[in-house]
Amino acid sequence: MATLNDIGVAAAINILTALAFFLAFAMLRIQPVNDRVYFPKWYIKGLRSRPLVNGSAFASKFVNLDLRSYTRFLNWMPAALQMPEPELIDHAGLDSAVYLRIYLLGLKIFGPIALTALTVMIPVNWSNNTLEHSGLTYSDIDKLSISNIPIGSHKFWTHLVLAYGFTFWTCYVLKREYEIVAAMRLHFLASDQRRPDQFTVLVRNVPPDPDESVTELVQHFFLVNHPHHYLSHQVWSLTSTLKIIPSSITFSLLQLVYNANKLSELVNEKKKIQNWLDFYQNKYKRNPLKRPSLKTGLLGLWGNRVDAIDFYTSIVERLSRDICGEREKVSSNTKSIMPAAFVSFKTRWGAAVCVLTQQSRNPTTWLTEWAPEPRDVYWENLAIPFVFLTIRRLIAAIAFFFLTFFFMIPIAIVQSLANIESIEKALPFLKPIIEVKFIKSFIQGFLPGIALKIFLLFLPTILMMMSKFEGFISLSALERRFASRYYFFQFINVFLGSIITGTAFQQLNHFIHQSTSQIPKTIGVSIPMKATFFITYIMVDGWAGVAGEILRLKPLIIYHLKNSFLVKTEKDREEAMDPGTIGFNTGEPQIQLYFLLGLVYAVVTPILLPFIIVFFALAYVVYRHQIINVYHQEYESAAAFWPDVHVRVVAALIVSQLLLMGLLSTKEASQSTPLLITLPVLTICFHRFCKGRYEPAFVRYPLQEAMMKDTLERAKEANLNLKGFLQNAYIHPVFKSADESDSESESESEWERSPALVATKRTSKRFTPMPSKDGGSVLSLDQVNDECLKP
Amino acid sequence: MATLNDIGVAAAINILTALAFFLAFAMLRIQPVNDRVYFPKWYIKGLRSRPLVNGSAFASKFVNLDLRSYTRFLNWMPAALQMPEPELIDHAGLDSAVYLRIYLLGLKIFGPIALTALTVMIPVNWSNNTLEHSGLTYSDIDKLSISNIPIGSHKFWTHLVLAYGFTFWTCYVLKREYEIVAAMRLHFLASDQRRPDQFTVLVRNVPPDPDESVTELVQHFFLVNHPHHYLSHQVWSLTSTLKIIPSSITFSLLQLVYNANKLSELVNEKKKIQNWLDFYQNKYKRNPLKRPSLKTGLLGLWGNRVDAIDFYTSIVERLSRDICGEREKVSSNTKSIMPAAFVSFKTRWGAAVCVLTQQSRNPTTWLTEWAPEPRDVYWENLAIPFVFLTIRRLIAAIAFFFLTFFFMIPIAIVQSLANIESIEKALPFLKPIIEVKFIKSFIQGFLPGIALKIFLLFLPTILMMMSKFEGFISLSALERRFASRYYFFQFINVFLGSIITGTAFQQLNHFIHQSTSQIPKTIGVSIPMKATFFITYIMVDGWAGVAGEILRLKPLIIYHLKNSFLVKTEKDREEAMDPGTIGFNTGEPQIQLYFLLGLVYAVVTPILLPFIIVFFALAYVVYRHQIINVYHQEYESAAAFWPDVHVRVVAALIVSQLLLMGLLSTKEASQSTPLLITLPVLTICFHRFCKGRYEPAFVRYPLQEAMMKDTLERAKEANLNLKGFLQNAYIHPVFKSADESDSESESESEWERSPALVATKRTSKRFTPMPSKDGGSVLSLDQVNDECLKP
Repeated sequence: MATLNDIGVAAAINILTALAFFLAFAMLRIQPVNDRVYFPKWYIKGLRSRPLVNGSAFASKFVNLDLRSYTRFLNWMPAALQMPEPELIDHAGLDSAVYLRIYLLGLKIFGPIALTALTVMIPVNWSNNTLEHSGLTYSDIDKLSISNIPIGSHKFWTHLVLAYGFTFWTCYVLKREYEIVAAMRLHFLASDQRRPDQFTVLVRNVPPDPDESVTELVQHFFLVNHPHHYLSHQVWSLTSTLKIIPSSITFSLLQLVYNANKLSELVNEKKKIQNWLDFYQNKYKRNPLKRPSLKTGLLGLWGNRVDAIDFYTSIVERLSRDICGEREKVSSNTKSIMPAAFVSFKTRWGAAVCVLTQQSRNPTTWLTEWAPEPRDVYWENLAIPFVFLTIRRLIAAIAFFFLTFFFMIPIAIVQSLANIESIEKALPFLKPIIEVKFIKSFIQGFLPGIALKIFLLFLPTILMMMSKFEGFISLSALERRFASRYYFFQFINVFLGSIITGTAFQQLNHFIHQSTSQIPKTIGVSIPMKATFFITYIMVDGWAGVAGEILRLKPLIIYHLKNSFLVKTEKDREEAMDPGTIGFNTGEPQIQLYFLLGLVYAVVTPILLPFIIVFFALAYVVYRHQIINVYHQEYESAAAFWPDVHVRVVAALIVSQLLLMGLLSTKEASQSTPLLITLPVLTICFHRFCKGRYEPAFVRYPLQEAMMKDTLERAKEANLNLKGFLQNAYIHPVFKSADESDSESESESEWERSPALVATKRTSKRFTPMPSKDGGSVLSLDQVNDECLKP
Repeated sequence: MATLNDIGVAAAINILTALAFFLAFAMLRIQPVNDRVYFPKWYIKGLRSRPLVNGSAFASKFVNLDLRSYTRFLNWMPAALQMPEPELIDHAGLDSAVYLRIYLLGLKIFGPIALTALTVMIPVNWSNNTLEHSGLTYSDIDKLSISNIPIGSHKFWTHLVLAYGFTFWTCYVLKREYEIVAAMRLHFLASDQRRPDQFTVLVRNVPPDPDESVTELVQHFFLVNHPHHYLSHQVWSLTSTLKIIPSSITFSLLQLVYNANKLSELVNEKKKIQNWLDFYQNKYKRNPLKRPSLKTGLLGLWGNRVDAIDFYTSIVERLSRDICGEREKVSSNTKSIMPAAFVSFKTRWGAAVCVLTQQSRNPTTWLTEWAPEPRDVYWENLAIPFVFLTIRRLIAAIAFFFLTFFFMIPIAIVQSLANIESIEKALPFLKPIIEVKFIKSFIQGFLPGIALKIFLLFLPTILMMMSKFEGFISLSALERRFASRYYFFQFINVFLGSIITGTAFQQLNHFIHQSTSQIPKTIGVSIPMKATFFITYIMVDGWAGVAGEILRLKPLIIYHLKNSFLVKTEKDREEAMDPGTIGFNTGEPQIQLYFLLGLVYAVVTPILLPFIIVFFALAYVVYRHQIINVYHQEYESAAAFWPDVHVRVVAALIVSQLLLMGLLSTKEASQSTPLLITLPVLTICFHRFCKGRYEPAFVRYPLQEAMMKDTLERAKEANLNLKGFLQNAYIHPVFKSADESDSESESESEWERSPALVATKRTSKRFTPMPSKDGGSVLSLDQVNDECLKP
């Protein structure tokens, strides 16, 4: 048992570590040479191109010589808090702003709870002497916990009432937050720039057709089932159509999905070589007297010496030819066209209708869903058929099950090692060292937390592989799935694992052979005893860990290494920055673990709450700073993750209620059981209400909103060239790599006039092939191919 | 323990009962006087207006004197089977035809299973002598069951392989059936007559608005968000619009929902009085010499004697005035307008889009769903707000929980009484009577089944009240909900209750305090022992019960009683017929119980299967006959219940697998456990696949279908007056009672020309009220009111 003293030592160590990190950060961040590590966001947004330095000396390019700036070493904290939320949303996107609200949610929930719990419950718990008379070993922490209340005491009513109070408070805060975030999301979508994904629907599982190609099939299907106006031979221009029939659903643009894996390789290869070419050209420019040369053999050490620029130019040319060939092959070969397409509509209303409805008789074909943001698309998964998706999901579920329940064994071993007594028993020669008081405290305070952390480092890669295997089609969906898996894993292995495996690691087997009502009891009883362990865990993972995040030690080192050895061009330097993202997939489950701990221990051992509050406050400031200055999100999902956040907090609430029930039932406070059973029932009802009331804002797009936005846009920009805007939005990145900047305006005239025919080409098409005028992607591919032929 | 002999006696009794029922039916049905009891369907469909008799004598009006017809007393059976399925669908609707397929499904599943099980398993089970050596009492039935296999025997592999075989066969048949029914449904919907519910959407929870009435609000909302074409001041006639813009979504007609409970009472009152008036008028007509008179006091025994016709005429007139007054009050009083409306669209496509999409920002307002068939609407529930729905569902769930788990106690008592030994112990003076062999067999064979049946008679009323309380808005949904509750109830109380409560009726408590893996074991072990009980249950409930159904004893008696004493007019005689319905709500769960029994006992005691097959075959013929000749469905849901049927059979399959696992684990055949665990997992995957693949056909309406049907209709009937068709479809029945036959053609011209304005009347409307030209219901109410003023 760790005593209050041990906790003190651990706290001191962790606070010192955190301070050291902050100090180091304060020093490093004001050095111009680190500017790209600590402020990459500003570089990426194009708001800064080089360090802001006062002096103009050569040295001041690398080291900050302005001594005054060293004195204000914590001034980044208020600076991070100053930016108002709307500006933050503009600056970093809604995802980041809402992510920060999770920390605020923690503060809002646990602030009042901690205040109440500490003032009410500590005196109630302290004023007994059950533990003193029990003959058990106990620590001072335990004296402040529910363990100190005698069995069958009437004082348990305090805990019961507080459990109700905490539940209602948490639900209230959750509901309000859900409401706010839903409103923020809708406001963001409404006031947002025009985005291609608002008009575009991803169609998957286009059924094979013997007579028509995928392009034709998709075109015909949507022309027939979401007909637009000029289908009936009326020669109207687009703009007038838009004015007269504001909302008729108009199929406008179709971008096919190609299987372009080989092409993708070639493009990457070319990019690398091009970079070398740039490097040598720069070198030549700087030193025009000596043309750079290199050896062609292994690692540039053997072989003939050739002129570097000529050499790479020839390779680039060859690769360009190869790419063009491959491109033509891909775009002409019907086999490489996947049965999926991005279909764009003329109005948001039309797209919303297409997404929300079922298209065909067979519900496993013509699956429609909102297209993810172009940068959010995970291209590799676009072509998985429906049946395989079911099977893949099953396999992933089974694999995850085994991962979760067999990962536990190594943790259990470490946990039992972290027990001082067992170390002494196993390795008796270590006894004199361990018995040194400081080292003993250190081991007890640190080891279990660190051991857990190390184990958890292996996990993300596996989980991400699983999510990808399951066939999600956007990065944001991948990350959300990852997060929910990761949370479940942490719940079983970190939370339950730490509570129970200390004694036995056959949990699952144990639970199956145990009565259903016994499980909460078993866990509930062990909970108060594990409070000290979780306090140290919070300090290591939450305090020092968060402080370490701001230092960005790994990106710092890697950047300087790259900068010294690998960076050849300015573009390389851009790429060496690695700003990272907020990492929703691993970050959110970590926060959720703190919610879980806080809610479970709120009634049981309230002394744990201040530690959690410190974590939330610290993390809020640190992540706010990082979001403003560092992280660069890969995608914008408009806070689509909030329902997940909400449901996990609710789940934590229910777990805490069940465990309290188990704990109290062993305390012979059985008169409270009916009252305790109603709590989870009420919580589940609350969840169902919230799901019905707020969740649709996150998964669907109300027609009213769509119509409003469409009408507004039409009023503001009557002559909008939507097709130009959507033209190349959903082209596979490898097709995009050619400069597409000037190809947008080309097909306007065509778009405005072309009347579409819905003649069925089922029989005649085979023999008299007609150029498809409406297939945007084919068109844009042609453009890309045209460009190929230019140089 | 019931012996093979007891079963034989019970079988004989039940077969004789069934034969007696059939004989009585054969006699009664050919009597002309019973024609309206046994062939009401033909009367209702208007295909028959009086009995088909050969003779013309007076006697032959009541008694069949054609002796030859008595000799062919079973010829209704082939006659029932002769009508081909498409004709049956035409004649009785898809619901009935698909309902019959459930019995066929039973035959398809259990036919091959019984054949395999009996040929393979009976020899395997019989060839042991475990029971003989065990010293336990056992019956011959038990010798044929799995109980006879020695513990740890390798013969259990047979059962395991057969369990796999049966699972695959069942899944195969289920999948095929789901496919066929889904196709039948879509075909039915596609080839169906034009029905108002294909064009109509029920909008609920219209949010209150301070400036506009519900009518205006709904009108504006849909004009804005589902705009039609003539909103832009184009003076086009409807028909040309339909031709040019075939699919633009066009809001056309809106029928409000009124709170008309008082009016409803008045209308019923008037109907009753009108009936008396008809009666006396008929009487007067038949005997013009004597004007009928009656006393006005209590029961017509006291008071002044008045002229009956004058008396009732005056009451009818007074009621008519009251009704008109109330009607005007209802239609003019804004408070009696519920925040719900039936909104009709010009195309199926438009309606489908409106149903499948979310309308407004707040997902709890403007809820849209397919309008039920007009006769299917359950008017009382139309105006329940969203929040109350959640609360009501919670309350209903809790009430159902208590109903299910406390209903068990009386059954347990009866079950223990049905044990001969305990009766003898409790009432020793009955011993000599009971010991008579025949009576003993009778009690053992019959009593448990009958006791159960009596208890279950109380149930339907309670369950239907619960469903209504939950707020479903159509009769079909009410019945579906009822059925799923009833099935769950039967599963717990009839199936589990019969298996376990014989020993203890604290099941729930028991299970909570038992380990999860123990539950299947506890039940699994008792299963083989209860085979004889279920065999008698099948014979009583399934054989004799079904044969009793065809006799229609209750309707027969009631009809003749009514005919003798109450029937005054021809209309009364119509109403006295009471054809009844197939009774999906109670009928389907009963069938499902047989599926459950069959699947559970298929591997354990296969001798039970032939009894089940006899039930399915008999019930198929009987219900086919009844559906053709008797039942009159109140609504047509186009087989919307099939997903429920499917999921319950799958659930029964999983239960059977779990119980087999429990049973085998007590037989120390533990090497089979991993193989047995995979079975439910595979079954669940099968279910998920089926759900994804076929269920959408039952809940959504694919746009492709809608568009196809729209296009076809437009091609066939270009000048269709859709508004006339939809005009009065969704008027509350009390408003409909006035003759609306000739009001349909009135507003055509208006409909064709009226250009709708979407001017927001938010401020001006209050002061300059304008007649709402587009609100169909207000219009039709005016018409009804006009009619009120006519006489």
